[in-house]
Amino acid sequence: MPRVAATRFTYLGPEATFAEQALRTLPGTRTGVLTPSASVPDALDSVRGGASDAALVPLENSVEGSVSVTLDELANGEPLAIIREVLLPVSFVLLARPGTRLAHVGTVASHPHGEAQCRGWLRGNLPNASVHSALSTSEGAAAVARGEYDAALAAPLAASRHHLDVLAEDVHDTDGAITRFVLLTRPGRPPERTGNDRTSVVVFIADNHTGALLEVLTEFAVRGIDLTRIESRPTKQQLGRYCFYLDCAGHVADARVGEALAALRRICADVRFLGSYPRADDDLPAQRPGTSDDDFAGAADWLAGLRNPPR
Amino acid sequence: MPRVAATRFTYLGPEATFAEQALRTLPGTRTGVLTPSASVPDALDSVRGGASDAALVPLENSVEGSVSVTLDELANGEPLAIIREVLLPVSFVLLARPGTRLAHVGTVASHPHGEAQCRGWLRGNLPNASVHSALSTSEGAAAVARGEYDAALAAPLAASRHHLDVLAEDVHDTDGAITRFVLLTRPGRPPERTGNDRTSVVVFIADNHTGALLEVLTEFAVRGIDLTRIESRPTKQQLGRYCFYLDCAGHVADARVGEALAALRRICADVRFLGSYPRADDDLPAQRPGTSDDDFAGAADWLAGLRNPPR
Amino acid sequence: MPRVAATRFTYLGPEATFAEQALRTLPGTRTGVLTPSASVPDALDSVRGGASDAALVPLENSVEGSVSVTLDELANGEPLAIIREVLLPVSFVLLARPGTRLAHVGTVASHPHGEAQCRGWLRGNLPNASVHSALSTSEGAAAVARGEYDAALAAPLAASRHHLDVLAEDVHDTDGAITRFVLLTRPGRPPERTGNDRTSVVVFIADNHTGALLEVLTEFAVRGIDLTRIESRPTKQQLGRYCFYLDCAGHVADARVGEALAALRRICADVRFLGSYPRADDDLPAQRPGTSDDDFAGAADWLAGLRNPPR
Amino acid sequence: MPRVAATRFTYLGPEATFAEQALRTLPGTRTGVLTPSASVPDALDSVRGGASDAALVPLENSVEGSVSVTLDELANGEPLAIIREVLLPVSFVLLARPGTRLAHVGTVASHPHGEAQCRGWLRGNLPNASVHSALSTSEGAAAVARGEYDAALAAPLAASRHHLDVLAEDVHDTDGAITRFVLLTRPGRPPERTGNDRTSVVVFIADNHTGALLEVLTEFAVRGIDLTRIESRPTKQQLGRYCFYLDCAGHVADARVGEALAALRRICADVRFLGSYPRADDDLPAQRPGTSDDDFAGAADWLAGLRNPPR
Repeated sequence: MPRVAATRFTYLGPEATFAEQALRTLPGTRTGVLTPSASVPDALDSVRGGASDAALVPLENSVEGSVSVTLDELANGEPLAIIREVLLPVSFVLLARPGTRLAHVGTVASHPHGEAQCRGWLRGNLPNASVHSALSTSEGAAAVARGEYDAALAAPLAASRHHLDVLAEDVHDTDGAITRFVLLTRPGRPPERTGNDRTSVVVFIADNHTGALLEVLTEFAVRGIDLTRIESRPTKQQLGRYCFYLDCAGHVADARVGEALAALRRICADVRFLGSYPRADDDLPAQRPGTSDDDFAGAADWLAGLRNPPR
Repeated sequence: MPRVAATRFTYLGPEATFAEQALRTLPGTRTGVLTPSASVPDALDSVRGGASDAALVPLENSVEGSVSVTLDELANGEPLAIIREVLLPVSFVLLARPGTRLAHVGTVASHPHGEAQCRGWLRGNLPNASVHSALSTSEGAAAVARGEYDAALAAPLAASRHHLDVLAEDVHDTDGAITRFVLLTRPGRPPERTGNDRTSVVVFIADNHTGALLEVLTEFAVRGIDLTRIESRPTKQQLGRYCFYLDCAGHVADARVGEALAALRRICADVRFLGSYPRADDDLPAQRPGTSDDDFAGAADWLAGLRNPPR
Repeated sequence: MPRVAATRFTYLGPEATFAEQALRTLPGTRTGVLTPSASVPDALDSVRGGASDAALVPLENSVEGSVSVTLDELANGEPLAIIREVLLPVSFVLLARPGTRLAHVGTVASHPHGEAQCRGWLRGNLPNASVHSALSTSEGAAAVARGEYDAALAAPLAASRHHLDVLAEDVHDTDGAITRFVLLTRPGRPPERTGNDRTSVVVFIADNHTGALLEVLTEFAVRGIDLTRIESRPTKQQLGRYCFYLDCAGHVADARVGEALAALRRICADVRFLGSYPRADDDLPAQRPGTSDDDFAGAADWLAGLRNPPR
Repeated sequence: MPRVAATRFTYLGPEATFAEQALRTLPGTRTGVLTPSASVPDALDSVRGGASDAALVPLENSVEGSVSVTLDELANGEPLAIIREVLLPVSFVLLARPGTRLAHVGTVASHPHGEAQCRGWLRGNLPNASVHSALSTSEGAAAVARGEYDAALAAPLAASRHHLDVLAEDVHDTDGAITRFVLLTRPGRPPERTGNDRTSVVVFIADNHTGALLEVLTEFAVRGIDLTRIESRPTKQQLGRYCFYLDCAGHVADARVGEALAALRRICADVRFLGSYPRADDDLPAQRPGTSDDDFAGAADWLAGLRNPPR
């Protein structure tokens, strides 16, 4: 992340949870300063206020769905820009104090999400253990370190932090479960396009007429743009009024994406651009003929020639 | 609800919360038996297992958005049918033991949602009070009754249940905030149509091709059907794969709605019908010409005549 | 054509033109009675009035386009039904009296269409010949037989009829040029479907709103029906008001076609069904998933079960 | 037509027909030189070759439909540009030599179109007159002047030219029948926009996939552009392959029209721009919100700001 000189990162804390684990996969974090925030709004406010350069927060999980607070902050809070995404597999470790054996685990601590995502594993491997809620996976590990519980389901990072042993690795119920995090900065020039990018926007429908969303989706479809996600959120003003959080393939610098966003800007009550950034996955569909930058440039030249023919 | 002989209702408990408040607005609840359930899944399982005839659970809130656990249960659990909806304004009361004066309230208990929806009011009216989390609004009231806190933000129903006085009424930050509850039974013949109905389905997209959702929305649009809500939920199998929870105007018995649902059934991997039921609001758009039952019947007769002309 | 007992055919005359040539490719014509009509309206009126059982008239040509009089008769005249189509390659013969040699041909007679479709050939092969208009290709051949001209461009059938020799075969400028003829009867039960059928309709747009034609095309597109032709014709009432002659793949007995036609019936001011009949070509695109009769039947059963669940 | 210095006009002749009548409604024709051409191709070639500055030819008639030869020349011939349109009501006069009384008219000459458009009037007013075909309405009048027939149905202009009296005015069967003529020049800068313009293009579909035309229409619809006419013409290469002649509301200088044309250029095999020119009628639908030039400019500015944010 070369554009941030001396990078001060924050993330949804506490330390040693999956958010820190995800953040540490990004370049620049080795030399940066990493500070946990107490909540998603706190992390984002830290960036807004200038105390941090960038914040990593969860956006969605393939099992739990969207993280509403993140969506609402992005849609309604002071604007921020997504500059990176991280896809982190949901994969817990079972941690215990050195010397503990799996057979002796009678109590397990974890955040409720951890319990939810490992319920089957617990039933199969620790059928008699009682499970206790902690405020975070890291808190659960800390409680184990303090001797309050026998074991904790936590992020791998928590083992060394809390000087615990790993009794079981890659613990999860749903294969392929993934949490998607986004790295946010103050708005600025988007990252350069890589050819495998994603663009995120929030659109507010102009009025509630039938087919307004259909019109929005059509603006993407006519330009051959793949929508990778659509999520409605209440506008908080009236039941039945929603805004839509949309992710699409491509970069705002792509001609087709730019034209589609400009179209949304024209026909919607409001559009908030959340950023264009490299995709962390690689699910590229075939690009529809006639929608490349060259196609757009050729058509623009042709149109210019119609409007102002050469003498 | 005449189709349920001796009606045993359950609802998301505990007692004296907004769910019970919502349930008691429905006919049949005065003579029925009302039993709280500990969670949304418990309430639904009570109906699935036959212990209850109907369950009332929250589906969405105009500020907080969808209740994911309800959507997921409806989409993936053993099928149930929505037969009624209730729109309950979010309106708290501040309760205290008899004799307490507002000026003396130093501690307030509530469920975190209550705190979230009344934060502004608290700042304005009880700027020095500390707020404490309770497992439910009703629990908060009970704690006040036990003398643990000075006041509780709770549902109006909680006052008489816990023998508390109302210090302030209609407490809320967002005017018009509403929670939408649905009443669920085992699948059966849908309620008769009233002319102002809503139909709910969950659709699973056949493959991830660009424009699949557009095709789904088009099936509604070509038949002049108003979509009142669209909500994506992860299928839990892979990040980027979603199912869509859709509410539309109309009843499965309406020709246009029936034909649209049949079309979804043909083009989607799966469609789960969640029910047709009377709308609790009244936001009827003008019906598009050519989409009434008479129009469909006339066109069907015409088509039959083409296929089998009279001699 | 077994449904017409003792078949009396008429066709756009005079005798020995391409219309007769096309008609004779059809089964039943060997044993039927074939009578030329003086014009397309005369041929159609002969069927309408009962003097003929069926009439063969040209509908379009791959070079000249539509035959407007046929379209207008089908759209506005007393209804008739298309039961067959014939695709006849445009392929003239140059006819002359026995003994004539190509080098000696100084005058050529033909219908203006014949001249138009063979202009290049004439320039290349008879650069010095003068070309004279005849009322039909057959008339041109008759004039040659009478000694008025040296040669005629006519249908192959004209050779034997007028006792002329063929100086050149398969004369044409555009390879693959084809005339499409249709066989018309009084309306009745359409021919059985063959799996490679075409259906023709004329639709009258309800009002002139932007996008009315788009709505019509969408009704076909959502059901995966291939439109093979669209032709606008003035309604004759006002400039800028058109009706649309549409050909689509499939048979009115196909569920998807039937539902699309019924939809047009609902949303258009008027729809005139012109018939379903075997296609004379074989340009079958892949059928879209979810649009087979089985898909429709399965969806209809599912819908019936939703509306009237089994006890 | 200020851009053509000393204007040499040609038109579909002969003199004193409706084409000349239409041409004389245009500014500049009083001082220009007007020369008839023998055919539509001759008139257009006269402009292409530089012998004329502009040619007026018929494009469509509200009763007869399109003039195929004009469409084909515009689609396939050396490019020309439409710079004006003229809508001329179909209104014949019955002309006779001075002294002739209507009751004595036993023979009427006209072009077949004239006969077709006045058949009812002839039946009602001259039931016993025989009707004779002339090569043009003007030829018919000339034949009357020569004494060959008693009367002619012709353009009003023909009266003075041929020194004939008007026996009946405004003769026609269909009220409101109109012929639309277009004035063509060599391609150049289009006429300035007036706010009530029309744009004409010919599009060649990229391949024959289902829904290609739907995609073309959608490019207009998403930008709120009214299509005033769509006409298919064979590409002359294969039966079932068509190009589409499209007229839309607006001017190529309009942002929405320009973007739509550029989109067609991207997704179609070929697009031929035929011109933007003032509409001769005034059938303006309400413009869809979000599609004005200001809307486009505002959206473009917004997009530029996203791509290159101010420091």
